[in-house]
Amino acid sequence: MTRPSAVPPPVTAVLDASSRWLPARLGEVEDLLREQARGHGELLGVEAGETLRAGGKRLRPLLVLLCAGADGGKDALRAAAAIELVHMATLVHDDVLDDAPLRRGLPTIAATGGRGRATAVGDLLFSRAFALLAEHRQARAIELLAGASVGLARGELAQRQDAFDLETSEERYLERCRLKTATLFECACRLGRDEDDLGAFGAQIGLAFQLLDDVLDVSGPPERTGKARGADLLDGTVTLPLILAVQSDPSLREADLRGLDPAAAEALCERIARSGALETVRERALEMVGSAKEGLAAASFDAEQRGLLELVADGVVQRYS
Amino acid sequence: MTRPSAVPPPVTAVLDASSRWLPARLGEVEDLLREQARGHGELLGVEAGETLRAGGKRLRPLLVLLCAGADGGKDALRAAAAIELVHMATLVHDDVLDDAPLRRGLPTIAATGGRGRATAVGDLLFSRAFALLAEHRQARAIELLAGASVGLARGELAQRQDAFDLETSEERYLERCRLKTATLFECACRLGRDEDDLGAFGAQIGLAFQLLDDVLDVSGPPERTGKARGADLLDGTVTLPLILAVQSDPSLREADLRGLDPAAAEALCERIARSGALETVRERALEMVGSAKEGLAAASFDAEQRGLLELVADGVVQRYS
Repeated sequence: MTRPSAVPPPVTAVLDASSRWLPARLGEVEDLLREQARGHGELLGVEAGETLRAGGKRLRPLLVLLCAGADGGKDALRAAAAIELVHMATLVHDDVLDDAPLRRGLPTIAATGGRGRATAVGDLLFSRAFALLAEHRQARAIELLAGASVGLARGELAQRQDAFDLETSEERYLERCRLKTATLFECACRLGRDEDDLGAFGAQIGLAFQLLDDVLDVSGPPERTGKARGADLLDGTVTLPLILAVQSDPSLREADLRGLDPAAAEALCERIARSGALETVRERALEMVGSAKEGLAAASFDAEQRGLLELVADGVVQRYS
Repeated sequence: MTRPSAVPPPVTAVLDASSRWLPARLGEVEDLLREQARGHGELLGVEAGETLRAGGKRLRPLLVLLCAGADGGKDALRAAAAIELVHMATLVHDDVLDDAPLRRGLPTIAATGGRGRATAVGDLLFSRAFALLAEHRQARAIELLAGASVGLARGELAQRQDAFDLETSEERYLERCRLKTATLFECACRLGRDEDDLGAFGAQIGLAFQLLDDVLDVSGPPERTGKARGADLLDGTVTLPLILAVQSDPSLREADLRGLDPAAAEALCERIARSGALETVRERALEMVGSAKEGLAAASFDAEQRGLLELVADGVVQRYS
């Protein structure tokens, strides 16, 4: 259950469908992000800047901008940049925690600059997010983002608490996913437009995103995920596929998670896959996405905005199909 | 140049002198800190709570409350708690960076729970600081604290950048101290009362605090500092005593910082001490504290408030006398 960092391909579809205003707005977010990385002295900015440049397709900023709509103004742009800064900060810190050598095919700061620099770079990105919003007195945005950040840290702690525990319940797993992933998706939507319906939409697609990411960790193939199959297992992270597999095949409870090597992890992935758990988790994720899209009907959107949000929801699924 | 975490003994003197209102206000800050640690589920709160309980004598909250005065209201209490949360977060992260086994004589979270938990606990404390202020829409306080947090992270990065570099200039060293230490002292004063004169007071005593801490790292004795002499040297951190010693004894430039063991670090401490650099740094710190106290005359304080702030300034010095 690494935090998903890659992005559904249909971001491109969303951009194509919204060429009237979205690409220009996303471009402004990029400018803001570059400014944040630059504003710290030439040398200090290098790593923060590299992190930002290397990073993903901006799914969370996309949600902020889509929910805010074409007339979202500068507040939405800054909120979009701030949530990406927080997301990047958590990725940099995750790489410290996991001693990860690569992220998105590039060496991590933890690997090139050491844990110390990586921890500090994460702290810097995190601080900049709040400084950016505070400069413009976006009090509600700060409240939302600080609340989500508390959730992220709690999720990380819960995951470590549960490590190697084959008795982890589904409820506990889902709570962890909510904290670690869904919270920030919910926050992104609310930063764009602060409504419960939209928050619920974000939370559901975020949860589906995490479930499907956890399926991918078991299913592979490594060429697609950029990491070995069973990376979560090797980390001791018990995810829903394993939880369900244990339910249908109790002999899996004997698995010695602490003693796994990569070959044993791959073998365990095979056993999980044979149990049918991956299909079950995939179906649940699809249901969540369906329910998220239905929920959008309650929010008063124009047809274009709603269509774009549905495309994002579909993108979460298609990434894994 | 570890971040100073201990506190000058005259905090007691300040409390005695201000028994009319300060102790009760500090007690309220403690209550707030306990609440922040508790509000994250029983298991998750444990380590954050231990960190808060273990921690120091609350010098930064003390500055907030003193500058805000007896009528500072709830905003000052929350600001005082928030700055302590940020300070604790940096200490927890510092212990990750330094692989430190002990802090204030107790095992660090990094040592007992591992780097992962410690990074997440730091992130949690950090997030809670902003969440606490955001809940009450303290926009200017968030701006000040976020700005200071950016400074802390930049200072940490600068220190790593300069590691093992015997050519580090005095200016560069002082800039690092400003970022790593003085900024948060300045922020504490401004959180209490947002005036340039008070900010300057905080920055000067913060800088003096760091200089004297760096003297103590060289002078020891370990029984007093709780760490071996030359811990900074072993870390590759070049501080003002070494910079000045190299100026008066250029042969020190040949020192192989990367190859130091504890015995060699202690021997290097002796050479630095013999150069007279410790006295010079101490004098500079004393001048800063003197100038900080003079600067207070410009701020319109009642005699009691000014007297208490002067006691804090003296405390910074007396800790090292």
